[in-house]
Amino acid sequence: MTDLAQTVMERCDQLAVCSEEHGRITRPFASEAMRRAHDHVTEWMRHAGMEVRRDNIGNLRGRYAGTGEGTLLVGSHLDSVRDAGKYDGPLGVLVAIAAVQRLHDANRRLPFGVEVLAFADEEGLRFGSTYLGSRAVAGELDQDELRRTDADGVTMAEAIRAFGGDPAKLAADRWTGDRPLAYVEVHIEQGPVLESLGLPVGIVSAIAGQSRYEITFTGEAGHAGTVPMDRRRDALTAACEVVLGVETLAKTEDRMVATVGKLEVEPGAANVIPGRVTFTLDLRHPSDANRASASEAVLALAEKTAERRKLAVEIRPVSERAAVSCSPRVIALLRKAIGDGAVEVASGAGHDGVYMSEITDVGMLFVRCKGGISHHPAESVTAADVGVALDVLGRFLDLLAQP
Amino acid sequence: MTDLAQTVMERCDQLAVCSEEHGRITRPFASEAMRRAHDHVTEWMRHAGMEVRRDNIGNLRGRYAGTGEGTLLVGSHLDSVRDAGKYDGPLGVLVAIAAVQRLHDANRRLPFGVEVLAFADEEGLRFGSTYLGSRAVAGELDQDELRRTDADGVTMAEAIRAFGGDPAKLAADRWTGDRPLAYVEVHIEQGPVLESLGLPVGIVSAIAGQSRYEITFTGEAGHAGTVPMDRRRDALTAACEVVLGVETLAKTEDRMVATVGKLEVEPGAANVIPGRVTFTLDLRHPSDANRASASEAVLALAEKTAERRKLAVEIRPVSERAAVSCSPRVIALLRKAIGDGAVEVASGAGHDGVYMSEITDVGMLFVRCKGGISHHPAESVTAADVGVALDVLGRFLDLLAQP
Repeated sequence: MTDLAQTVMERCDQLAVCSEEHGRITRPFASEAMRRAHDHVTEWMRHAGMEVRRDNIGNLRGRYAGTGEGTLLVGSHLDSVRDAGKYDGPLGVLVAIAAVQRLHDANRRLPFGVEVLAFADEEGLRFGSTYLGSRAVAGELDQDELRRTDADGVTMAEAIRAFGGDPAKLAADRWTGDRPLAYVEVHIEQGPVLESLGLPVGIVSAIAGQSRYEITFTGEAGHAGTVPMDRRRDALTAACEVVLGVETLAKTEDRMVATVGKLEVEPGAANVIPGRVTFTLDLRHPSDANRASASEAVLALAEKTAERRKLAVEIRPVSERAAVSCSPRVIALLRKAIGDGAVEVASGAGHDGVYMSEITDVGMLFVRCKGGISHHPAESVTAADVGVALDVLGRFLDLLAQP
Repeated sequence: MTDLAQTVMERCDQLAVCSEEHGRITRPFASEAMRRAHDHVTEWMRHAGMEVRRDNIGNLRGRYAGTGEGTLLVGSHLDSVRDAGKYDGPLGVLVAIAAVQRLHDANRRLPFGVEVLAFADEEGLRFGSTYLGSRAVAGELDQDELRRTDADGVTMAEAIRAFGGDPAKLAADRWTGDRPLAYVEVHIEQGPVLESLGLPVGIVSAIAGQSRYEITFTGEAGHAGTVPMDRRRDALTAACEVVLGVETLAKTEDRMVATVGKLEVEPGAANVIPGRVTFTLDLRHPSDANRASASEAVLALAEKTAERRKLAVEIRPVSERAAVSCSPRVIALLRKAIGDGAVEVASGAGHDGVYMSEITDVGMLFVRCKGGISHHPAESVTAADVGVALDVLGRFLDLLAQP
C-alpha cells in the first residue's frame, strides 16, 4: 500500500516534467506536453490491466472490466494552470489508476467495470473555457466552443484535430451506456481546512455555487488639489465601501467566501480624483439560497452607496453556477470507507463533478495539502496522506461491490 | 473694458487652435503648436507697446517700460495638458497683456515697468517635468533636467535647441535685476468655491503644500473559492480601509484635500484573492504643520491596518512640496482693488508662483470657472468675470503706482 502511494508520488513528479515551459509546470489542453503526459498515463493504465482509448475532446479513458455490466467512473484532470503545482488534477487520476492496479495485482474483478477518466481540460488555460473534458462526457459541449482561439490564433477545432480528435464528432464522447454507478474524484483540497483539523482526507459535501458580477461606479474625475472633499464624487471611495462590505458579509456568514479580486481605477493618476472604478465580485456558498441572498445584499449595498455618494452604478452579472450537492449515497459510502473522523467540507473551487452530476451521482474525496496552497509550485501533499486516500478509495470500491 | 475682456476671450479661442491635435487642445512645451501660439502672443504684446523677447527655456517675455527702474512681473503659462481647456494658463497671460494694452491705449506709463511672462511649461506634459518656465526665471533649473526625454526619445536639450533656445545658457534666463516689486498671476480657480460663493474673482491666500506617498500592502494571494475568510491576508481589503480613512480624515479637517488616485491590484484576477496592492496618496493643505500631522495619521493607519491584518506594508515618500504663502502686501492691495466681497481661498493646485516666490512677493487672483472643471475641454469662464479680473488687475497697478 505504502508502495503504491509512493508510486503515485513518483508519477506526479514524472507528469510534472510534461510541461510546455522549462522549469515550471504548464500543461495546457491538447498540447505537446499533454501528449507526453498521455504516453505515460496510457502505459500506467495498461499496466493496471485497463483498456485505454482517447476520445475526440482528448480525454484519456481506461476501463478495467468487471464481472457485470455496470460502471463506476473515477477520475480527475490532467491539464494545469500556468506555473502550476504537481497535484491539482494528476493526483486524482493517479490514485484512481493505483486503486485499479491493486485490484489487478490481486487478480480481482468487481461486479462492475471501473473506468478511469483523465479529463482533457478543467482549468481552461489555453482557450479560457471551462470543463471541456467533463462537458464532452456529459454531452454539454456546444459546437460554438470550437471557434474559440488560443493566444496564437489557433481555433479549438484545429487544436482538437492536431491532437488526433475529430471536432465534428464530439457528440460521440458523450456517455451513452446505462447510468454509471457514480463518479468519484480524489483531489487536493486547495484550502487549509483539513490541515487545520489535522485530518489527511475529507468528504466533499457540495461544490459551492458561484455568482460573479462586475460592478462599475461612475462619479466625476477632478483635480486632486482643487476640488474640496465635500464636492467630490469619488468612484474609488465608493468602491472601497463595497469591498469592505463584501468582506464583512462573508465573514459573518458561515461557509461563505466572497472576493473582490480585480479593481481598476480610471483615470488612475496620482493627482486625479477617480472618476470611474470597475471591480469584480466572486461570491460562493454551498447553498444556492444563501448565495442568492448574499448577492442581493451586496448589490443593494452598491446601489445604496451610489445613491448616498451621488454616483452612477452599473451591475453586470458575469456568470452564475448553481451549487452541486454530492450524492448522499456516495457520501455515506465514503464515510464508511473513512471510518472514525470522517468530516465533510464544501468545495469552494469548481470541479469536473459539476458536469458529471448531470449523468450520475457524484462524490469527491479531498486530500490535505500544505498551507492550503494550490495553483502554485509550492502545492504539496504527503505520501502518507496519499496512502490514506488510496486506502479509502479501495474500501469504497469494496463497499460498492457488496451485494 | 468689456471690449478688452471680449478680446481676451477671443484670443483664448485663437490660442486654442494652436494645438498638436486636431479638434482638441494639446500644446506641449517647445512644440510647433507652441511656436504658433508664440507668434500670436508676440504680436499682441507688441500691439500693447511691449518689447518682446524669448529666453532660452522658451518663455516669452514682454516688457512695457515704466518711468522708473522697478519691475512688476505679471504672467501665467502657455502650455497645456492633453485634451485641455482654453483657460488654464493662457487666460492669465492674456489678461496681463490686456491690462498693459489699457495703459498703452491711454498713453500711460507707470513708475515701474510691467513685464508679462508667458511661461514655457507649467504642466510638464512633454517631459514629465514641473514648472520649467518659472524655474528657469528663478534660477532653479538643474542641467540634469536636460537629459529627460519625451515620448519620441527627444531630449529636453534637443527640444530647447529646436525651439531656438540654447540649452547651455539656461542660467541666463534667471532674473538678475533688482528684486521685482511682485509677481502677480491671474488664473482660473480650477475648483468650485467661487462659483458656490457667487463671486467672479477671489484672492489666493496660499498655494497648498503637497505630500505624495506610494503605499504597498503585501498579503497572500489565494484561491477565491477555497481559502476561508478568516484565513485570508487580502491586500485589497486592507487598502480599502486606508482609502476610506484618508477620506474621513480629510473631510474632518478644514481646507485639507486628500486623494487616492491610483490603485493597482496584483495578481488582479476575478478568482484570486489580492496578494498585493499599491496605491498613491496625495495630501494637500495650506498649512505645512497640518499637512505633516495628517500625513503621519494616514501612515500610522496604514501600519496599524497592516499589523491587524497580518500584512506587510511599505510606505514610499514620493515628493513633498512646502506651502507657499502669498505676500500679505500683495493680498492687501488685491483686497483694496476688489473692494467689498473680497475673499481669500487657498489654491490646492500648484502654480508658477511656487518658484517665483523665491525671487519676489507673490500674489494670485482666481477667476470663477464653471463647475470647478479644469484640465478638460469643458473648462469655462465668462467674459463678464474676465472683465472683473481685468479691472481688478488695473486697479492693482494703480494702487501699486501710488506713492
